[in-house]
Amino acid sequence: MDSDRFDASVYAQRLAAVAAATAGAGLDALVITPGYDLRYLVGSRAQTFERLTALVLPASGDPTVVVPRLELASLTGSAIAELGLTVHDWVDGDDPYALVSAALGGGRLATAVTDSMPALHLLPLADAFGRLPVLATDVLRGLRMVKEACELDALRKAGAAIDRVHARVPEFLVPGRTEADVTADIAEAIVAEGHSGVAFVIVGSGPHGADPHHSYSERELRAGDIVVVDIGGVCEPGYHSDCTRTYSIGDPEPEVAQRYSVLERAQRAAFEAVRPGVSAERVDAAARDVLAGAGLAEYFVHRTGHGIGLSVHEEPYIVAGNDLPLAPGMAFSIEPGIYFPGRWGARIEDIVVVTADGAVAVNNRPHELIVVPASR
Amino acid sequence: MDSDRFDASVYAQRLAAVAAATAGAGLDALVITPGYDLRYLVGSRAQTFERLTALVLPASGDPTVVVPRLELASLTGSAIAELGLTVHDWVDGDDPYALVSAALGGGRLATAVTDSMPALHLLPLADAFGRLPVLATDVLRGLRMVKEACELDALRKAGAAIDRVHARVPEFLVPGRTEADVTADIAEAIVAEGHSGVAFVIVGSGPHGADPHHSYSERELRAGDIVVVDIGGVCEPGYHSDCTRTYSIGDPEPEVAQRYSVLERAQRAAFEAVRPGVSAERVDAAARDVLAGAGLAEYFVHRTGHGIGLSVHEEPYIVAGNDLPLAPGMAFSIEPGIYFPGRWGARIEDIVVVTADGAVAVNNRPHELIVVPASR
Repeated sequence: MDSDRFDASVYAQRLAAVAAATAGAGLDALVITPGYDLRYLVGSRAQTFERLTALVLPASGDPTVVVPRLELASLTGSAIAELGLTVHDWVDGDDPYALVSAALGGGRLATAVTDSMPALHLLPLADAFGRLPVLATDVLRGLRMVKEACELDALRKAGAAIDRVHARVPEFLVPGRTEADVTADIAEAIVAEGHSGVAFVIVGSGPHGADPHHSYSERELRAGDIVVVDIGGVCEPGYHSDCTRTYSIGDPEPEVAQRYSVLERAQRAAFEAVRPGVSAERVDAAARDVLAGAGLAEYFVHRTGHGIGLSVHEEPYIVAGNDLPLAPGMAFSIEPGIYFPGRWGARIEDIVVVTADGAVAVNNRPHELIVVPASR
Repeated sequence: MDSDRFDASVYAQRLAAVAAATAGAGLDALVITPGYDLRYLVGSRAQTFERLTALVLPASGDPTVVVPRLELASLTGSAIAELGLTVHDWVDGDDPYALVSAALGGGRLATAVTDSMPALHLLPLADAFGRLPVLATDVLRGLRMVKEACELDALRKAGAAIDRVHARVPEFLVPGRTEADVTADIAEAIVAEGHSGVAFVIVGSGPHGADPHHSYSERELRAGDIVVVDIGGVCEPGYHSDCTRTYSIGDPEPEVAQRYSVLERAQRAAFEAVRPGVSAERVDAAARDVLAGAGLAEYFVHRTGHGIGLSVHEEPYIVAGNDLPLAPGMAFSIEPGIYFPGRWGARIEDIVVVTADGAVAVNNRPHELIVVPASR
């Protein structure tokens, strides 16, 4: 099995960069409870809820980890020991929020917290700090959005693995089988092809393909169905794949083929719009403009894409209103779709990485509507 | 499969009771994002994060559900439609926090939020309300702690199922097999015996038994090991089992047997201390006093128990400092343990329900140290 985390040096660099960003934002510290940010910063997969575990990262000075004594084992496997971070354990009856405040020297503190911190911990921390924290997203965004070389390797590995799954999808799409049958085959293939786990499987056949958030059902596939297959898994140390292809059981109707060709152009236009300095919303508009030009704008009912990494959905979001300029190393999906309620839908999705002068995709399967036999 | 939820009438009653409790607490409303409280209130298993889904429960007036249009399907299966709750869907670009505020008539609002609400939603809601929410725990505690008849049925069903698993554990505990081997057998048995899923499996053999939060490892069982087996699953509609028994591979040393008998007495003393009006901390003290009387107080390093229901750990906590008076219908674990670092540990755990004049256990396997053959 691949390692759960990168070398400790990766986390040491990240912690230093985050401390600098924290100072730059005029904050005294970040407080990070278990979740993606904690995994990003120290390689910890801890998942605790009721008792406070927190990485306390001052803008200057050494980080501290506050953890219930009973859950010290949850830090095993992380880089915390190798990084030599101070660990303050606590037992039932102690006030862990006071421990966090004390680790920062006390006083009225300007802090930021991870976006997943539950109210259970956020509200008492706000009390201990004497003021309401802000979201750490702004401080971490710049770092987490721009992937390091080791992260890009992990995303490419995941992308190649999900491509191998899509290569096998046609054999699963047999009329008379249910979406649930196909989902089970795909889930098995996701692991067999090199992921450590399944993140999600969407098999939307016929009218179900018109619901972008359909999962799967007991509907049987039949000749003439258009089938949206949107799948993803996780590869250690925690990076995700996410790739959609659309299949046709038997030859598609001319109207379907024609509209699908517009979707292909829209996806390609968005991909070609990507380069450093271009805004995220400009990429969204590139896909939308092609669809609008063919009178299909109203059938594209979601954003064009989302960042991906430790989380399946993270920044940058490729959506109207996001004027964030793209930068080399950002990784996100480009996944326009068209949805005709009650009839059919189609989506094409690749994960792409911004390069010095454009973009490369980590997925490399053909984009065309893939026709599978209507009878076998 | 059993139903995902109770009849809608159960949720209608809960919503009415919560509205009254909200008014009684001087609050304008509760705001509940996906999690156990949402499942408790409307039977929804929605698990969304990035886009706001929230049940908005005013102290007076009709509840509203705010949900991303793309995730409307996540409410399917809940009682929301049958209860006729107003659903406000929103799309990317809308301000869902303003929608919540508007559903409450706007203005500066005194609200309480579910304890799992992520900072991502809590901080913008605080902005929209013009003041910081408090935790809804205080309002919901009284309701969630005291189980209804249908919940007690579900807990008894789960308790009987985990008892059947413990009845099979001796056959799994064969010297030379690893804790991981045993864990796999137990996980399979948890489902085979009537749970819909595995919640956790702890197999702590020999020195691992001395770590109350050990999970399992590649350590091989050997003659002379004392093995702590703490296991639980979930039965639809979402209620948990949690039961610990301790096993000895071959006859135990006299010191082990003697100390274990004290632990049995401690567990029984705590059980016998339970009745309406007695404080939670008094039950904790009952177990602790027996151990202290035998010079073993320092080896009991955790609280005596925790409430259980939709969540494996919930109120009431049976712990020093909790002066909550017990009431009929409360369900919690009684699980004292003794831990000798580097050597062995033992724990005995049942889930018990407070009755009109005492308590009954939902687990009914013998409490003794269960000796399994040291060779087969």
